Amino acid sequence: MTAHPDAAVLDRLRQAVGPAGVLESPADTEPFRTSVGATFRGAAALVLRPASTQEVAEVVRLCAEARIPIVPQAGNTGLAGGAQPDGSGAAVILSVDRMRKVRAVDVANDTLTVEAGVTLAEVQAEAERVNRLFPLTLASEGSCRIGGNLATNAGGTQVLRYGNMRALALGLEVVLPDGRIWDGLRGLRKDNAGYDLKQLFIGSEGTLGIITAAVLRLFPRPRAIATAFAAIPDPAAAIALLGQAKARLGDSLSAFELMRAPSLTHAIAAVPGLVSPFVEAYPWVLLIEASAQEGGESLAAGLETLLGEGLEDGLILDAVIAASGAQRRNLWALREAQAEAQAHAGKGVKHDISVPVSAIPAFVERADAALATRFPGILPFTFGHVGDGNLHYNPVMPADWTEEQRRARAGEINRIVHDVVADLGGSISAEHGLGQLRVAEAEHYKSAVELDLMRAVKAALDPHGLMNPGKVLRAR
Amino acid sequence: MTAHPDAAVLDRLRQAVGPAGVLESPADTEPFRTSVGATFRGAAALVLRPASTQEVAEVVRLCAEARIPIVPQAGNTGLAGGAQPDGSGAAVILSVDRMRKVRAVDVANDTLTVEAGVTLAEVQAEAERVNRLFPLTLASEGSCRIGGNLATNAGGTQVLRYGNMRALALGLEVVLPDGRIWDGLRGLRKDNAGYDLKQLFIGSEGTLGIITAAVLRLFPRPRAIATAFAAIPDPAAAIALLGQAKARLGDSLSAFELMRAPSLTHAIAAVPGLVSPFVEAYPWVLLIEASAQEGGESLAAGLETLLGEGLEDGLILDAVIAASGAQRRNLWALREAQAEAQAHAGKGVKHDISVPVSAIPAFVERADAALATRFPGILPFTFGHVGDGNLHYNPVMPADWTEEQRRARAGEINRIVHDVVADLGGSISAEHGLGQLRVAEAEHYKSAVELDLMRAVKAALDPHGLMNPGKVLRAR
Repeated sequence: MTAHPDAAVLDRLRQAVGPAGVLESPADTEPFRTSVGATFRGAAALVLRPASTQEVAEVVRLCAEARIPIVPQAGNTGLAGGAQPDGSGAAVILSVDRMRKVRAVDVANDTLTVEAGVTLAEVQAEAERVNRLFPLTLASEGSCRIGGNLATNAGGTQVLRYGNMRALALGLEVVLPDGRIWDGLRGLRKDNAGYDLKQLFIGSEGTLGIITAAVLRLFPRPRAIATAFAAIPDPAAAIALLGQAKARLGDSLSAFELMRAPSLTHAIAAVPGLVSPFVEAYPWVLLIEASAQEGGESLAAGLETLLGEGLEDGLILDAVIAASGAQRRNLWALREAQAEAQAHAGKGVKHDISVPVSAIPAFVERADAALATRFPGILPFTFGHVGDGNLHYNPVMPADWTEEQRRARAGEINRIVHDVVADLGGSISAEHGLGQLRVAEAEHYKSAVELDLMRAVKAALDPHGLMNPGKVLRAR
Repeated sequence: MTAHPDAAVLDRLRQAVGPAGVLESPADTEPFRTSVGATFRGAAALVLRPASTQEVAEVVRLCAEARIPIVPQAGNTGLAGGAQPDGSGAAVILSVDRMRKVRAVDVANDTLTVEAGVTLAEVQAEAERVNRLFPLTLASEGSCRIGGNLATNAGGTQVLRYGNMRALALGLEVVLPDGRIWDGLRGLRKDNAGYDLKQLFIGSEGTLGIITAAVLRLFPRPRAIATAFAAIPDPAAAIALLGQAKARLGDSLSAFELMRAPSLTHAIAAVPGLVSPFVEAYPWVLLIEASAQEGGESLAAGLETLLGEGLEDGLILDAVIAASGAQRRNLWALREAQAEAQAHAGKGVKHDISVPVSAIPAFVERADAALATRFPGILPFTFGHVGDGNLHYNPVMPADWTEEQRRARAGEINRIVHDVVADLGGSISAEHGLGQLRVAEAEHYKSAVELDLMRAVKAALDPHGLMNPGKVLRAR
């Protein structure tokens, strides 16, 4: 068990980062101790904000020596409480938000080496500066930071074409739980000289070490882009169209996003300036986008043919192609306003699930039916990256439920939805990670063998269990 | 230390796989104990060929109990001795070559679930049967097997566009060193519910467990393809052209292969039916290929413009675009004949290196110069996947060297070449793995922290060191 740090250790920690790197008063530490929307809140002995890898290493070394738990944090935009300590005050928060250097740009290698505290938007801008694309695209891109994107293996709307964060990183620098620095900052497309250690740290939510820098992949900037909305009768039509879109557009297909109709109405009501592209209300809507380096006309023609054939087949009820940048931005704004739309519709219970793409229709049908049977009046509310088999399935509570009722029933609702997911071979956390939110739920669904393997890896790298304790997996 | 297995244990192992699954006589086990080209040769107590995951698990459980080392094997086409035991005869070889089932095809999910003994060519054919592409392409595709492709994170000529084997697998089934089965056969594009355990096993060359089945990603089949040869003055021109090709062709760019001129002459001399596309002899040649679902005309036009501009700039000395399938096959045959060309040119010393793409010209220049200084008369011989920063840099010995001299100097030649690689931030094994061939060399170049991390992972999963001992890393 870990004790509260004593005064002498706290002093050495303060010295390790200097006065500019320490926050202590409850008011100053509040933004670090609290998650977005204040869903998660914890206590911390100190918030430490080292400005360099060496300072991170020194902090971790001191904490390891004194057995002080560390909660690593980057942009603190996570939705699963992965960056919040527990309430004991025994832990320190180590934020990489002052590590903001772009260390190297290698245009001919299509790589960018940045420190963990650089925001995603800054990485995107840095790539654009050298006429390249960094494709990761998230709602929180202005404030989330690369260290957190890596620690959570972030996803978003461009995964269909470019993969998630794991696919976008070639090398890492990591401070290990004993304070040593692992320099794995290689910018190589191929490297089979031993275990691919970076894979351990990507997606492990700070439980195995602290990522301090990374070599990121850059891509050519698409010059041609074609964007459409397609109203469809049901998720089965979405999957059929996805197959046709892949066959026709191949790698050009860069986004394939699904929304449920009520959410469009709520988005328009919630966010000023949004306009529906359709006069009628349809049950489901797809946002389809394709992009390429050249051949804008054939891209648009391909998308048009896809939509035309879909209309003939009855897979599509109505469709619009953006005829201008403004129209395209409006379509994306409707997609991006789904969180606001949901808040407008009422309080919900969130899920971040994935299933095989082919199982999406079965998932929606079965989860809808199971919830409607158990909780009549619950409003299905769903959007997400259907091209990746990933839906944010966030049913909104009936208006007559109190907040207490919602909280009391949330666990049961989770279980109903996740039972369907498990039965279809899916995941209960597609892109948000487990954090502290879904640890117990993951234990429920994972096999004993898988949990043992995870614990073996954790024990091998962090034998004292000091790195982000209680996240991803719990001590036995 | 491991002892030779006693007779009772061997009997239980025989029973675990049945008579059809055991080979014992030296003649019968010879093909399993010996690598391609007989570079590596070992001894084995038995060769066991289980027909199912349950049988693999039973064999591994018995071996774990009796502390018998296991050397896993699939197609036995590796070039680094990763599938050969040592000479002691203490180990058993466990071949998955009888595990040949295609377990599932999910066309709408673009996935194929196969057992580890299915050959790469069979996977390619299965994909084609459902109008999909499995992109991994290797010289040994007719005989290498998926279990080996996964265990070595195989590369090849399509990595530029589709990634290596790690990027092509969504899920694994693995028999762990204690004989338990980990069922991670998920067909999900996104799954952040805990550590991504499959990453541990991919590329770890059978040292952490035995992969028995996998869920593989399928892709749309390109319908349009454009292939060219471009003669260039030097590797710097290749890298400049690569940047232009990416900007112009984007994801359509699917191969970007470099060859050194003498190798073309030798290929034509060695392989009947090959024809040079050029009248003149040029110092370096590129094979460039682009493919797409549609837009064959714009693809060909894009490639033509690329080559035309390169000729104007002086980056290209001469170029041909394949005007027919036969011409395209001839260009690829010239690329694929590089191994034969090398044998024709004389005995060499092989390297499978990668550096950042931007460092390719510096690598060639510095490695050439260092070798020429130390060993005048050595013939530079190089080909490879320059788009991935991966070269097979295999200098051919002067004609007056004896085989003994070649062998005696091979270590020094390796060290000269690998010192340049290390200095440029590269890898001494880009795609072939470490096997037993490059274990000592990897220890020389890797940091103590990295070796410790690798050993910690190994000890956590295989505490008795029974899985493919001596490969990838050695016991301390």
